[in-house]
Amino acid sequence: MRILFLGDVVGRSGRDALVAALPGLRAALRVELVVVNAENASHGFGLSPEMARAILGAGADVITLGNHAWDRKEIIPALEQEPRILRPLNFPPGTPGRGATVVAVPGNRKALVVNVMGRLFMDPLDDPFRSVQAEIQRHRLGAGGTIQASVIDLHAEASSEKQAFGHSFDGLVSLVVGTHTHVPTADHQILPGGTAYQTDAGMCGDYDSVIGMQKGGAALRFWRKMPGERLAPAEGEATLCGLFVETDDATGLARRVEPVRQGGRLSQVLPQP
Amino acid sequence: MRILFLGDVVGRSGRDALVAALPGLRAALRVELVVVNAENASHGFGLSPEMARAILGAGADVITLGNHAWDRKEIIPALEQEPRILRPLNFPPGTPGRGATVVAVPGNRKALVVNVMGRLFMDPLDDPFRSVQAEIQRHRLGAGGTIQASVIDLHAEASSEKQAFGHSFDGLVSLVVGTHTHVPTADHQILPGGTAYQTDAGMCGDYDSVIGMQKGGAALRFWRKMPGERLAPAEGEATLCGLFVETDDATGLARRVEPVRQGGRLSQVLPQP
Amino acid sequence: MRILFLGDVVGRSGRDALVAALPGLRAALRVELVVVNAENASHGFGLSPEMARAILGAGADVITLGNHAWDRKEIIPALEQEPRILRPLNFPPGTPGRGATVVAVPGNRKALVVNVMGRLFMDPLDDPFRSVQAEIQRHRLGAGGTIQASVIDLHAEASSEKQAFGHSFDGLVSLVVGTHTHVPTADHQILPGGTAYQTDAGMCGDYDSVIGMQKGGAALRFWRKMPGERLAPAEGEATLCGLFVETDDATGLARRVEPVRQGGRLSQVLPQP
Amino acid sequence: MRILFLGDVVGRSGRDALVAALPGLRAALRVELVVVNAENASHGFGLSPEMARAILGAGADVITLGNHAWDRKEIIPALEQEPRILRPLNFPPGTPGRGATVVAVPGNRKALVVNVMGRLFMDPLDDPFRSVQAEIQRHRLGAGGTIQASVIDLHAEASSEKQAFGHSFDGLVSLVVGTHTHVPTADHQILPGGTAYQTDAGMCGDYDSVIGMQKGGAALRFWRKMPGERLAPAEGEATLCGLFVETDDATGLARRVEPVRQGGRLSQVLPQP
Ligand SMILES: [Fe+2]
Ligand SMILES: [Fe+2]
Ligand SMILES: [Fe+2]
Ligand SMILES: [Fe+2]
Ligand SMILES: [Fe+2]
Ligand SMILES: [Fe+2]
Ligand SMILES: [Fe+2]
Ligand SMILES: [Fe+2]
Repeated sequence: MRILFLGDVVGRSGRDALVAALPGLRAALRVELVVVNAENASHGFGLSPEMARAILGAGADVITLGNHAWDRKEIIPALEQEPRILRPLNFPPGTPGRGATVVAVPGNRKALVVNVMGRLFMDPLDDPFRSVQAEIQRHRLGAGGTIQASVIDLHAEASSEKQAFGHSFDGLVSLVVGTHTHVPTADHQILPGGTAYQTDAGMCGDYDSVIGMQKGGAALRFWRKMPGERLAPAEGEATLCGLFVETDDATGLARRVEPVRQGGRLSQVLPQP
Repeated sequence: MRILFLGDVVGRSGRDALVAALPGLRAALRVELVVVNAENASHGFGLSPEMARAILGAGADVITLGNHAWDRKEIIPALEQEPRILRPLNFPPGTPGRGATVVAVPGNRKALVVNVMGRLFMDPLDDPFRSVQAEIQRHRLGAGGTIQASVIDLHAEASSEKQAFGHSFDGLVSLVVGTHTHVPTADHQILPGGTAYQTDAGMCGDYDSVIGMQKGGAALRFWRKMPGERLAPAEGEATLCGLFVETDDATGLARRVEPVRQGGRLSQVLPQP
Repeated sequence: MRILFLGDVVGRSGRDALVAALPGLRAALRVELVVVNAENASHGFGLSPEMARAILGAGADVITLGNHAWDRKEIIPALEQEPRILRPLNFPPGTPGRGATVVAVPGNRKALVVNVMGRLFMDPLDDPFRSVQAEIQRHRLGAGGTIQASVIDLHAEASSEKQAFGHSFDGLVSLVVGTHTHVPTADHQILPGGTAYQTDAGMCGDYDSVIGMQKGGAALRFWRKMPGERLAPAEGEATLCGLFVETDDATGLARRVEPVRQGGRLSQVLPQP
Repeated sequence: MRILFLGDVVGRSGRDALVAALPGLRAALRVELVVVNAENASHGFGLSPEMARAILGAGADVITLGNHAWDRKEIIPALEQEPRILRPLNFPPGTPGRGATVVAVPGNRKALVVNVMGRLFMDPLDDPFRSVQAEIQRHRLGAGGTIQASVIDLHAEASSEKQAFGHSFDGLVSLVVGTHTHVPTADHQILPGGTAYQTDAGMCGDYDSVIGMQKGGAALRFWRKMPGERLAPAEGEATLCGLFVETDDATGLARRVEPVRQGGRLSQVLPQP
């Protein structure tokens, strides 16, 4: 299965670039499953239902979120009705929405997508390791199984937690990819057990910024410790950041993992089709 | 000036790879200044004086450290005597050692190297922004100045703090490069004011690991919450990670910044000489 | 039921004072159930099996622990064998020992004791609120029930989490008492639903100290940010700190809650018998 | 000098109780200096200028603040003009307002009042230890000195930091009292060097609450991890919490320190006049 994952979409710059480029990327890379983290789509804070529709309309199969999941309250009913938008799995029972979904993929295949949040330097949600372990045990990966691929978006701060997670599920899922730091890492690899891994996908946003927000105000917060003006997203051209993974439908494990960076300031890289 | 920066050296695997490769890298890239963060050289925790000598002997001009600076107590006298080993600048007055040094570079030039630590999700040291501002005001960058290049190793966790720092000193220093997460980021760029920037240099260590430590024990700590065995460094082949920067001696600002990844599991990249 | 709870025993000073005074306190107050948090009994770090025996021998019915539960590894087999020593309930499944126990009380009564850890500014264990909710649902409180009293030791840092916890279980348990800050609070009260509450029991230790440890070295750590010598417990006379609760066996709820402070530097207070 | 310190005033309940009771308390205890922390006076978040006037009008000589100093922006000009309102001293240079002030006390005496913020589990401001050390070195305490008493409000979370601070300045100031946890501690004492100390003054607010805020909504935040409604202050009768200190004008050190708790749910205690 040919999978494209794109990291945190930030503000109008990120949204516009994503919606403009996704159809072309889908075609050029012959992608069969697209997952996009969009927790910062709405002015840097949350996701509105209309933006969700635009992103799905442009070719995303599943949208994931993170700690900003609840910033736009209007998304809550959408989380209940639209199975293609995920909030992190490890919120307590009773939380609106869902953290995992199985989507149909051309060729009579299915893929599991999970969104889960780390805990190091973050809110103490339920254990992400046990939560994902329980979720994947509900499925059987590979030819003749219930799913042919599985993608875990681990929304987390600390590289140690992300790498520990990757190794913990190595051989059990197709891809573990981090989000939340808004910086793409250059450590994409296939782990020894066959799982594709990258510590952070990076953001889809303007990289002349502080994690996608206007650099002046954001930097000032580190100099002055008084709260300042509300931050606004940077408006320069976005770099779409993420990765491309090709899996073996027989095993559900990865054959290739390659970075994707298109547009904007960062060095450009696209997989060979 | 042609500068090579290499990130956190972890354990024997990182040390051996560094010492073996540095002379060749220096020559191939015609490097004039080498800075190496070595806070994890000693079994993952700190730096011993002999290891410092080996790293300097292999061609490093300056060694930087971080939160692990004090893990090996024997380094403290060396910090007092050896101006080429830095601990973070923003420890309180009275702390042994120094956080900044000026080194001679061939061609009758000088370079300032600073090691400083971030505070987000880390120990509350003195303000890294004001500390570095005060340090760089002691020098004049560029042709006819007191220094022709300046390198800031910002040892920090959060991408927001690192990017805010880069923008704050854009145009005032040659390079701001992050360390501490042990994962190379793919966001190397020359900021609008002329400063080269990369959120994290990555580590010199085995990337089949949890930030350089053996993956089994390190991952277990996230599943069980009892303290376990002391972690040991992973022993697979290291990837040397860092970046190459070329600056303009007239301005002290950057002309080129390119990633360096050599050996081990990560994708390989070396600048054109 | 007449219940005495005493907070974190720190070092020899705390142990000696506890063992010397407990028999007299038990008698003077006609106590029927004694719970002692002893996570710092062993030089400030953990609890050894012999110390546990001494504390049980002096009249404690149950010993609770906290974040220092695992500092002395020898306690782990004791946790498996001795049901009267509890580690926090909300460690992951598979953790040695138990977090709750039911003990017999004279007069053919039973009491549930639970040890649980908060998460704000602490390790991200499992949810303490849901963990305790599940535990107390296994019992029926009051006359004709399976237990006639229930004591929750909430080992936590933040006053907000402790008070939120107290109100969440108000009317459902006999006592919610905090530990971990090592400072007794003066907010003992019976909450509107009938549960006795105090934000922190305080420690059994020398209050001319930094939370029981020698003040010189402990204060120095805030001035210098390098790790220093290992801290040692202060050796002055301990103040035993805790509280006395009298419950109604018919309802399991509280009739009286009063502070206990005896010996050492703090203001002295003992309940009327 | 006879000093009354009252902890964080929370919402209308705290303000009304304070304004109603302060004149009587001043008279009954023959108080010569009143310091009130009022960082939560405005619906739990910050202090408005009118509230500041009301509190000063009721008999406070100095108002201190904390991490909520900036919640009501209208206070910023007042901080510039009104020397009797302090924000924490250890904000960076350039922050509006001041963190220390000297006020005249009847009998031709003067008192220094300092507000400073801790860093453990809080924002990384400048070093509170060195900041206060520098401030008190500007004054000479005692008969014939520039001040006859000095009061430090250490707004901090962790008991370890507060106790380390108290011991660090023992013998150098009249009183170190903590604020911020909103729970009075029962560890008031005169430290060996002569400084009065209490880990936390407690709040002036309704103690059937979560640190002064309505308990239902506040507790729910620990059960659900989605952000909920904005918290509102609890409206039951407040307990005024704080302490009374009597110092020796000759030395500036403490002769007596006693708790004050009046009104509302907590156990009542007032010093003998
Ligand atoms: Fe995020
Ligand atoms: Fe994000
Ligand atoms: Fe580090
Ligand atoms: Fe490191
Ligand atoms: Fe503890
Ligand atoms: Fe403790
Ligand atoms: Fe407060
Ligand atoms: Fe506060």
